[in-house]
Amino acid sequence: MEETVIRRLLEEVQAGTVSTDAAVDQLKTLSFEMVDNFARLDNHRALRRGFPEVIFAQGKTPEQVIKIFRRLEELNERVMATRVSKEMYDLIGSQLPEATYHELPRLLILDRTKEVKQPGVLVASGGTADMPVAEEAALTAELIGCQVERLYDVGVAGLHRLLSQNDKLQQARVIVAVAGMEGALASVITGLVAAPVIAVPTSVGYGTSFNGLAALLSMLNSCANGMAVVNIDNGFGAGYMAGMINRIGLKS
Amino acid sequence: MEETVIRRLLEEVQAGTVSTDAAVDQLKTLSFEMVDNFARLDNHRALRRGFPEVIFAQGKTPEQVIKIFRRLEELNERVMATRVSKEMYDLIGSQLPEATYHELPRLLILDRTKEVKQPGVLVASGGTADMPVAEEAALTAELIGCQVERLYDVGVAGLHRLLSQNDKLQQARVIVAVAGMEGALASVITGLVAAPVIAVPTSVGYGTSFNGLAALLSMLNSCANGMAVVNIDNGFGAGYMAGMINRIGLKS
Amino acid sequence: MEETVIRRLLEEVQAGTVSTDAAVDQLKTLSFEMVDNFARLDNHRALRRGFPEVIFAQGKTPEQVIKIFRRLEELNERVMATRVSKEMYDLIGSQLPEATYHELPRLLILDRTKEVKQPGVLVASGGTADMPVAEEAALTAELIGCQVERLYDVGVAGLHRLLSQNDKLQQARVIVAVAGMEGALASVITGLVAAPVIAVPTSVGYGTSFNGLAALLSMLNSCANGMAVVNIDNGFGAGYMAGMINRIGLKS
Amino acid sequence: MEETVIRRLLEEVQAGTVSTDAAVDQLKTLSFEMVDNFARLDNHRALRRGFPEVIFAQGKTPEQVIKIFRRLEELNERVMATRVSKEMYDLIGSQLPEATYHELPRLLILDRTKEVKQPGVLVASGGTADMPVAEEAALTAELIGCQVERLYDVGVAGLHRLLSQNDKLQQARVIVAVAGMEGALASVITGLVAAPVIAVPTSVGYGTSFNGLAALLSMLNSCANGMAVVNIDNGFGAGYMAGMINRIGLKS
Amino acid sequence: MEETVIRRLLEEVQAGTVSTDAAVDQLKTLSFEMVDNFARLDNHRALRRGFPEVIFAQGKTPEQVIKIFRRLEELNERVMATRVSKEMYDLIGSQLPEATYHELPRLLILDRTKEVKQPGVLVASGGTADMPVAEEAALTAELIGCQVERLYDVGVAGLHRLLSQNDKLQQARVIVAVAGMEGALASVITGLVAAPVIAVPTSVGYGTSFNGLAALLSMLNSCANGMAVVNIDNGFGAGYMAGMINRIGLKS
Amino acid sequence: MEETVIRRLLEEVQAGTVSTDAAVDQLKTLSFEMVDNFARLDNHRALRRGFPEVIFAQGKTPEQVIKIFRRLEELNERVMATRVSKEMYDLIGSQLPEATYHELPRLLILDRTKEVKQPGVLVASGGTADMPVAEEAALTAELIGCQVERLYDVGVAGLHRLLSQNDKLQQARVIVAVAGMEGALASVITGLVAAPVIAVPTSVGYGTSFNGLAALLSMLNSCANGMAVVNIDNGFGAGYMAGMINRIGLKS
Amino acid sequence: MEETVIRRLLEEVQAGTVSTDAAVDQLKTLSFEMVDNFARLDNHRALRRGFPEVIFAQGKTPEQVIKIFRRLEELNERVMATRVSKEMYDLIGSQLPEATYHELPRLLILDRTKEVKQPGVLVASGGTADMPVAEEAALTAELIGCQVERLYDVGVAGLHRLLSQNDKLQQARVIVAVAGMEGALASVITGLVAAPVIAVPTSVGYGTSFNGLAALLSMLNSCANGMAVVNIDNGFGAGYMAGMINRIGLKS
Amino acid sequence: MEETVIRRLLEEVQAGTVSTDAAVDQLKTLSFEMVDNFARLDNHRALRRGFPEVIFAQGKTPEQVIKIFRRLEELNERVMATRVSKEMYDLIGSQLPEATYHELPRLLILDRTKEVKQPGVLVASGGTADMPVAEEAALTAELIGCQVERLYDVGVAGLHRLLSQNDKLQQARVIVAVAGMEGALASVITGLVAAPVIAVPTSVGYGTSFNGLAALLSMLNSCANGMAVVNIDNGFGAGYMAGMINRIGLKS
Repeated sequence: MEETVIRRLLEEVQAGTVSTDAAVDQLKTLSFEMVDNFARLDNHRALRRGFPEVIFAQGKTPEQVIKIFRRLEELNERVMATRVSKEMYDLIGSQLPEATYHELPRLLILDRTKEVKQPGVLVASGGTADMPVAEEAALTAELIGCQVERLYDVGVAGLHRLLSQNDKLQQARVIVAVAGMEGALASVITGLVAAPVIAVPTSVGYGTSFNGLAALLSMLNSCANGMAVVNIDNGFGAGYMAGMINRIGLKS
Repeated sequence: MEETVIRRLLEEVQAGTVSTDAAVDQLKTLSFEMVDNFARLDNHRALRRGFPEVIFAQGKTPEQVIKIFRRLEELNERVMATRVSKEMYDLIGSQLPEATYHELPRLLILDRTKEVKQPGVLVASGGTADMPVAEEAALTAELIGCQVERLYDVGVAGLHRLLSQNDKLQQARVIVAVAGMEGALASVITGLVAAPVIAVPTSVGYGTSFNGLAALLSMLNSCANGMAVVNIDNGFGAGYMAGMINRIGLKS
Repeated sequence: MEETVIRRLLEEVQAGTVSTDAAVDQLKTLSFEMVDNFARLDNHRALRRGFPEVIFAQGKTPEQVIKIFRRLEELNERVMATRVSKEMYDLIGSQLPEATYHELPRLLILDRTKEVKQPGVLVASGGTADMPVAEEAALTAELIGCQVERLYDVGVAGLHRLLSQNDKLQQARVIVAVAGMEGALASVITGLVAAPVIAVPTSVGYGTSFNGLAALLSMLNSCANGMAVVNIDNGFGAGYMAGMINRIGLKS
Repeated sequence: MEETVIRRLLEEVQAGTVSTDAAVDQLKTLSFEMVDNFARLDNHRALRRGFPEVIFAQGKTPEQVIKIFRRLEELNERVMATRVSKEMYDLIGSQLPEATYHELPRLLILDRTKEVKQPGVLVASGGTADMPVAEEAALTAELIGCQVERLYDVGVAGLHRLLSQNDKLQQARVIVAVAGMEGALASVITGLVAAPVIAVPTSVGYGTSFNGLAALLSMLNSCANGMAVVNIDNGFGAGYMAGMINRIGLKS
Repeated sequence: MEETVIRRLLEEVQAGTVSTDAAVDQLKTLSFEMVDNFARLDNHRALRRGFPEVIFAQGKTPEQVIKIFRRLEELNERVMATRVSKEMYDLIGSQLPEATYHELPRLLILDRTKEVKQPGVLVASGGTADMPVAEEAALTAELIGCQVERLYDVGVAGLHRLLSQNDKLQQARVIVAVAGMEGALASVITGLVAAPVIAVPTSVGYGTSFNGLAALLSMLNSCANGMAVVNIDNGFGAGYMAGMINRIGLKS
Repeated sequence: MEETVIRRLLEEVQAGTVSTDAAVDQLKTLSFEMVDNFARLDNHRALRRGFPEVIFAQGKTPEQVIKIFRRLEELNERVMATRVSKEMYDLIGSQLPEATYHELPRLLILDRTKEVKQPGVLVASGGTADMPVAEEAALTAELIGCQVERLYDVGVAGLHRLLSQNDKLQQARVIVAVAGMEGALASVITGLVAAPVIAVPTSVGYGTSFNGLAALLSMLNSCANGMAVVNIDNGFGAGYMAGMINRIGLKS
Repeated sequence: MEETVIRRLLEEVQAGTVSTDAAVDQLKTLSFEMVDNFARLDNHRALRRGFPEVIFAQGKTPEQVIKIFRRLEELNERVMATRVSKEMYDLIGSQLPEATYHELPRLLILDRTKEVKQPGVLVASGGTADMPVAEEAALTAELIGCQVERLYDVGVAGLHRLLSQNDKLQQARVIVAVAGMEGALASVITGLVAAPVIAVPTSVGYGTSFNGLAALLSMLNSCANGMAVVNIDNGFGAGYMAGMINRIGLKS
Repeated sequence: MEETVIRRLLEEVQAGTVSTDAAVDQLKTLSFEMVDNFARLDNHRALRRGFPEVIFAQGKTPEQVIKIFRRLEELNERVMATRVSKEMYDLIGSQLPEATYHELPRLLILDRTKEVKQPGVLVASGGTADMPVAEEAALTAELIGCQVERLYDVGVAGLHRLLSQNDKLQQARVIVAVAGMEGALASVITGLVAAPVIAVPTSVGYGTSFNGLAALLSMLNSCANGMAVVNIDNGFGAGYMAGMINRIGLKS
């Protein structure tokens, strides 16, 4: 349960519009609750970690996704499912009309928050084929509450495309660098800025790219300091991390 | 050249204690300069990235380390050499008496800054054998200007050791989690906090630890979001990243 | 041939309801027998190892599975086929109506035993997507004669879900821990209990999970002692091992 | 703290030979305690898991090993350090005269228990070069309280050596199978018995043995069920697991 | 061109039934010849190596296979295409009615030789799923001129199935051992016999079998001497090698 | 923009057939330009590197390929898209009728240059299945302006096929050697000539070919000097490199 | 015990020079016997497999090697220890003066046989650095009873060195091909002959040779049929296999 | 034998200063010759490939290196030994005083040629630790006859160091790019120039650099075309390749 939802509930109790019994019933599941014997929802997560549990749709049935999504939106203002394939969305979309589907990054998002987005996150990507992962990062950071600058198709094969956007790089408080193939973009960007860089290797490539391994190793061995790396194609994780970092400025 | 050094130089020019010619000579190397044909010092780095170039001592001769160290300390208030083995220190220590050697993390550090350290960084480690890497992270973050809380030997084999320090975990603005073997510590910590976590796999282990690969893969595949990973045994990189993140709060 | 089947045959000979010739014919195949030139059934296995040969359906034709299944059920009270895909079951199910199909764990089971199930086995899993493997383990242990406690979706991203079930963990005589991604669940559970833990890495994950390799390495390198590991996705093997361990208590 | 130690302390309190204050001081560290800032001893482990914390000597300084060993023996009747090289023992042995050093398996052991060893554990190994790992397993199981049967140099290149010891195999309640090179011994043994088998791949071999990887993979892919695997050269882990399994019979 | 074909041609020239010009035309291509710009047929191979070029059908178009097959059968008494999928055979079978298709091992074979097959080759396999590879080996050795004894489904999980066939093992002059999963069969057989053993790892298995890598490594690291290994699933190569070895006896 | 295109534009300005304003508009995009927000075309590449940007069609939508292709052909005389599957070509071919599709190497090519092709490039390949990659190399080198000699199906299993073409090998100024399986062809050719050799491993093979890794490693470890290697199946890269090398002669 | 030794013993019994009791004592150990609790000598091996057990000295103590060697020479006419380092030989040589030490291949050999060596084995190697492995193969085959032709330093970088020795290649009945780096020699030789080829990859090389892996993969993926492979640097295994194959001709 | 040497010999024959018999003796070894039974010198190589055989000293004895070196200098004007460790040089240097030793790149070189060096080769490297490999490349290219421009310590962490040398990059006819860690330098350079680039990954780095594998994969997957790669640390191979390419211009 997100803090705003709990706060609202308590205000309603205070105002007498919700009975204490009803409130107790809701708060009872604050720690976790079973959903139909297959999922143990970590309702406490939004309080503890600042963001509610996210649904990893891959490997779940459409029914499971629907049930968890619906329960999550009762308790939170933001719900997100990742790796929702077009096939799955065609099966579940009509039953979750309040949610928005983004086909390229395979995200299903419900955002009822009203807070102003905090600037500071830049998402850069190497090539057109890296866009799904880059968008997954950007949309995640936006849902967390950030305003996101996008800088796509700036791979090192034509370095001037990146260098010409130097001011955007300098203004960012945290950068997500998305690249496949040899993943050199992350090193080059990190060498230019003072902001921390979250590098995301993608599985774009063939042969010895080994589905993203080449880019991953490249990023882990960067000679430029101030970079850390997430799993291959894990745009969500990078956007989440960037969002958490960008929030640090917010609080202080 | 660090900003403080340039600022001081300009003030001296303004005060007339340094001639414009002498100042020009100094500023000429602001971009980069050759040191004896083997190194191309990136003097601009401290301005651009907020921290001067760091000496990666491994693979350099003692003479090279001494020459670069000396030139760097003319231009900066902070100088650091990493991976300085005890053998190398025995050869160069007497010639760099102003620097402090830390044997466990193999760091040689000179810190003339006077700024107050900013709290917010926590470095946690799994076992006693992970301490060299953890200390490398902690000392790096301190040199960058952070106050560092250390939480060592809290591996998941005895989980209550970690859980009993929950308040320290909650107070941190950014966490460095250092672990070898299966590296589960990073996942467990990340699941407990809202702060971003920089995970450092160490080469502690044997057999299928493959010199840290098991821990690295474990960290890259964490089911807990809000973590990013650096190279195996790269305590320096993690401390650097944590310092950059912790500085974000400072500026705003 | 299971001991109970042989015992019954001998009782029928003693009672005169089966001729010695007929009994000899049956016992002749006690060591092994050919089924249609493609399989050499190890009929002695149930006697030697306490459990009859299990059919690994993957890579066999539907006809082969049917023939072996039928012969096995003549000689044993329990028959199990693993990795029976839904497609294969649709082809063979109507001809083996006495067997029960479990779609999720892809098991086809015939259980005519009447023994009371022995408590002591706990199967825990990290996420919803690990359920097929966890169920494969649980059903196997049940067929071997164990009563199985299930504890699903208790991954370390929300540790309190696991810790709140501590009494179940303490009561188990042997635990099967099933997890994909970074597989940290197995280490965390092992650190909490005195019972031996059989860890099963699953192929749940993406990118550097390398189809379960990350979880496997994590489990092999656990800093918690008292754990051993089976092949990726080998729920059957883990359930079998757990069943054998749990039977030790039975005999003494 | 082992249960027997706590029990004795309480009896002394009851008898008046130890003051309640002194007892409280001792029990205060029951959860965990710091040893000189480098180790956080999990004193609760013996109670929780049935065996006290074991010292992984590799990567620790001689002083650290001595300090931890001494503190552990104040609280427990059994203390063990693994991976104690001959070099380290030469430095620490004279200060820990009460402990016995086993050079081949690199174990330093103190055993003050008086319980009768429980039969049931068999340790088998493939070749002479596997003996250090096999002995590590055997001595660990003995310290846990088991009587251990050893069956060494029974590799599959001369199968009759193993088959001639069939009665020993059948009598074991749990078997540890230690083998390097292709590790086939574990499969062959598992196929012959009803007891659970803990397989230990060793790094014995060269070339494509890849320091034990070939044996590990062989064991993980065994066509014989009822086997689980530990890390390469992890005799300690296998002996520990076997001891835990063998104790199951003890309790019931 | 096989020696028998050349010999027949020369006899026909001698007998005057073939003109010298026609014979020259044929012999002109004895070294190699282009087939439609895509293949450079090594017609000399049968003379040089004792067996004509074999068609690796995978990656070729149906038309290419037909054209090469037809040309080869003009020059040789034996033609074989490997890795002919059922789909490809359905496209080309009617145009090559003189050839026999074996679906399981995906072989298309034409054998017009009349020589008596030489006994001495034994092909053993671990499980039913290894049969396609085993049959590929057996049929290849037969085409080369050997009489092949088959011993299938004798995996080490039920060792008595293999041991009961000891006389067949002892009579073989050369043995092909085919096994997936942990591939222990090859080691066990080699330890029992004086004949050389060609081991074939198969891709049967899952998880850490890594499509046959586990079996391959197991075989390469065998503690039993007198074994050599071919590529994963390379039944053809093993049968070929066995045939060449068995022919040694023939010549002397 | 290719130099010839810019030159023609300037001549038209000089001749008055194009206004300076129109020319400025065209030259404005000389550095790079956005195409519909998904691509940042590096128009400067042809000037800087001698060849315009090439479209990597894999991972792009048909619409994206069409748009980029059309824009590129406005600015250049040569346009190439690689990895254009038959499926994609069926969708886009009718809209780009001026381009020629090569199905085997999956190339879509537009060549309006009129320069005479420069002899000197030889492309050799091991087997029929390597032809798609070999053709990709040959067509790329031709588009760059080279005349290409093809020498296909000369694998080392029948060495005389290669040796008989020795004069062609000696005449080449630069050689592309394409081979799968064990990739020995590249070493053998390099040992015979003075020309530099670009080796291309292909994914042709099975089992331990690991999709071309075996051939790649073989080529990287060649005992013959004067060879360098490109990514697996990267015929385009090899043809490009060979073209660049062959142009060196052109200039001098 | 070798057949010749048993035969001699029986002749002595027949002649009365050895008592039946003494003969029984000797024959008692025919199956296997313990040597000092660390080794279980497979005395039956020479009878069963045609060659006595070989001592793998690596990982054994000097005393163990001496004891086993001495016992083996009581029972056999041929004794061999492999991987006897110079350091070990300096310790044990004086106590085994009857044995001959070969430093390069690290072999210690005792050969009291008087049989005439059988021609037919050819050992070829790529470079000078491969000689230790090649010699290990050659000396092993000689001890088994073969006459060995050596053809060293014929790597493919200078192909004419190999081709000029074509007659030797054609005369061999079985060939051992030893090569490091890219291991192409094995493929090239196999393509030239009708004899079976045993390929031995060596660890000669650096970087991506990965200690022999590149050569191994190259050999496993050979496009030339009639080759099988042994472990990296396993000259002994290859010589053994070649000897077994060459003996086939002997018997018939 | 280098062409110049043969030409001189023939001129001496013509002039009568060398007898035809003596000349025949020399030319007899033109193909290859044995040196002391361990080496088969490929004397034809200089004629065929334009450069004489190079001695790979690693794995050879000092005596072998001396003998081969001496024989090579009788036949050629240029002799080079690679991987000559300082230890080996201390043993052989005094006996080869005519040769020059370069300790950093471990090269022993004799150069009696008088030709003017041809400009065109640029060797760039990432960091100081890459210098040994870079120097190996540079000295090799120089021996082949090229004039080499060096551009060291221009890693991408401080990109302006490289960009400021753009004119040198543009003037090069062929570039060798040497880099460890993530190896991004090669991609960045290739994207800037029209010259072909030979990329050399070095083993500089730690952890997941896997001794140069990360850099190698990065280079193989470059998004910039016109680059090919040699083995890890193979500066010699890269310099050789660059020299061969640079010579192309020379001839035309």
